[in-house]
Amino acid sequence: MDAIELVPGNSLITKTPEEGRHLAIKMSRLIIKITQPDAAMREKLRPRYAEDAAMLISIGQTVAMEFATIAAANNYWRNTQ
Amino acid sequence: MDAIELVPGNSLITKTPEEGRHLAIKMSRLIIKITQPDAAMREKLRPRYAEDAAMLISIGQTVAMEFATIAAANNYWRNTQ
Amino acid sequence: MDAIELVPGNSLITKTPEEGRHLAIKMSRLIIKITQPDAAMREKLRPRYAEDAAMLISIGQTVAMEFATIAAANNYWRNTQ
Amino acid sequence: MDAIELVPGNSLITKTPEEGRHLAIKMSRLIIKITQPDAAMREKLRPRYAEDAAMLISIGQTVAMEFATIAAANNYWRNTQ
Amino acid sequence: MDAIELVPGNSLITKTPEEGRHLAIKMSRLIIKITQPDAAMREKLRPRYAEDAAMLISIGQTVAMEFATIAAANNYWRNTQ
Amino acid sequence: MDAIELVPGNSLITKTPEEGRHLAIKMSRLIIKITQPDAAMREKLRPRYAEDAAMLISIGQTVAMEFATIAAANNYWRNTQ
Repeated sequence: MDAIELVPGNSLITKTPEEGRHLAIKMSRLIIKITQPDAAMREKLRPRYAEDAAMLISIGQTVAMEFATIAAANNYWRNTQ
Repeated sequence: MDAIELVPGNSLITKTPEEGRHLAIKMSRLIIKITQPDAAMREKLRPRYAEDAAMLISIGQTVAMEFATIAAANNYWRNTQ
Repeated sequence: MDAIELVPGNSLITKTPEEGRHLAIKMSRLIIKITQPDAAMREKLRPRYAEDAAMLISIGQTVAMEFATIAAANNYWRNTQ
Repeated sequence: MDAIELVPGNSLITKTPEEGRHLAIKMSRLIIKITQPDAAMREKLRPRYAEDAAMLISIGQTVAMEFATIAAANNYWRNTQ
Repeated sequence: MDAIELVPGNSLITKTPEEGRHLAIKMSRLIIKITQPDAAMREKLRPRYAEDAAMLISIGQTVAMEFATIAAANNYWRNTQ
Repeated sequence: MDAIELVPGNSLITKTPEEGRHLAIKMSRLIIKITQPDAAMREKLRPRYAEDAAMLISIGQTVAMEFATIAAANNYWRNTQ
């Protein structure tokens, strides 16, 4: 289980908001991976996520939460703009 | 998948709260788009969102979350008011 | 769609917490309006909101989220008290 | 509708955390009241809230959200302790 | 109803993160208690909480929310570490 | 019940984001443990968590919430990067 890297690059710092958004998506997916390490089971559940409107919204909320933390870590990328 | 731009303009900075609100809506929709890249499937799910009271509320919560981050990034547009 | 004003007055600044609370309610309702622009459909969904305990609670959570941002924008109205 | 006072005392400032907690409860209930102004309907829905485990938890989350804002407004009552 | 103490010790300040976590649990339970003051009814609902996976997760989210506020109040116990 | 350690090491400070993420997972699981102390019952519920798409997403949201607090406690590990 510990073999899964939960924070790619082990850093919340990204160059741009766009990269921060991708990091948020990855981090949220990695929690699912560590909670359900069985790849076959995850593959079986995948259509559930992507074809259910309520779940798509919930995934959006998860990404919003992770991104809030990443954005704060990067001081909202204010200095690079 | 990476072809989708997740943060339009690659910046959280907007001129006004109104623009910040629109950015929040766009950012939340783009997460749905990247999670379900099949446009036909998204089109099929769309009535589910817009005609279900619980989902409309959930969408509102997602936008509220994204907007909280954007508003903080812009120091709540205090200087422009 | 852009014809809908999402932030009345295009500002998060209000004179009092009471006004901030009303702004939070309005902003959360305007997201529903822009997501479901059909007034007849919204009217049809309205009883669903107001007569379902779970949805009333969810609406309360949405307002709480929007208000958190508005309250921060106003420095919690500390100086006016 | 505007006759309902949404923030009792029109202030987020309280003397103690205990009072802040009570304010959070009141503010969350007042949103329900303004969303469903019909007292008879609210009375009918009340058992739904209080006898359903999932709803009790949701109410707890709403209060936690409102309290987070009130606690920040009061600088967490650090100076009074 | 007012007889219930909603914030044990009427303070958010604790000596350690561990104590802060316990305070978060207590505070979240006290909201349930004040919302459903009937002890017999709460006792009846208890198995619902503890034997339903979705509710256990929701309780975890409530505690996480309360703890976020308590941790901020204590400056994350940085000085004691 | 008090025998369960809710914050491993009684500190929110970690060396890296990766360790912070693991702490968030542990802290969220320990709340489930203290709410349902019966190991046999938890074991019975486990498949419910790991094989239900909606619950996996909810777990992800819980971890995101705990991590937000831990990340703030560590000043987002900015100085170590």
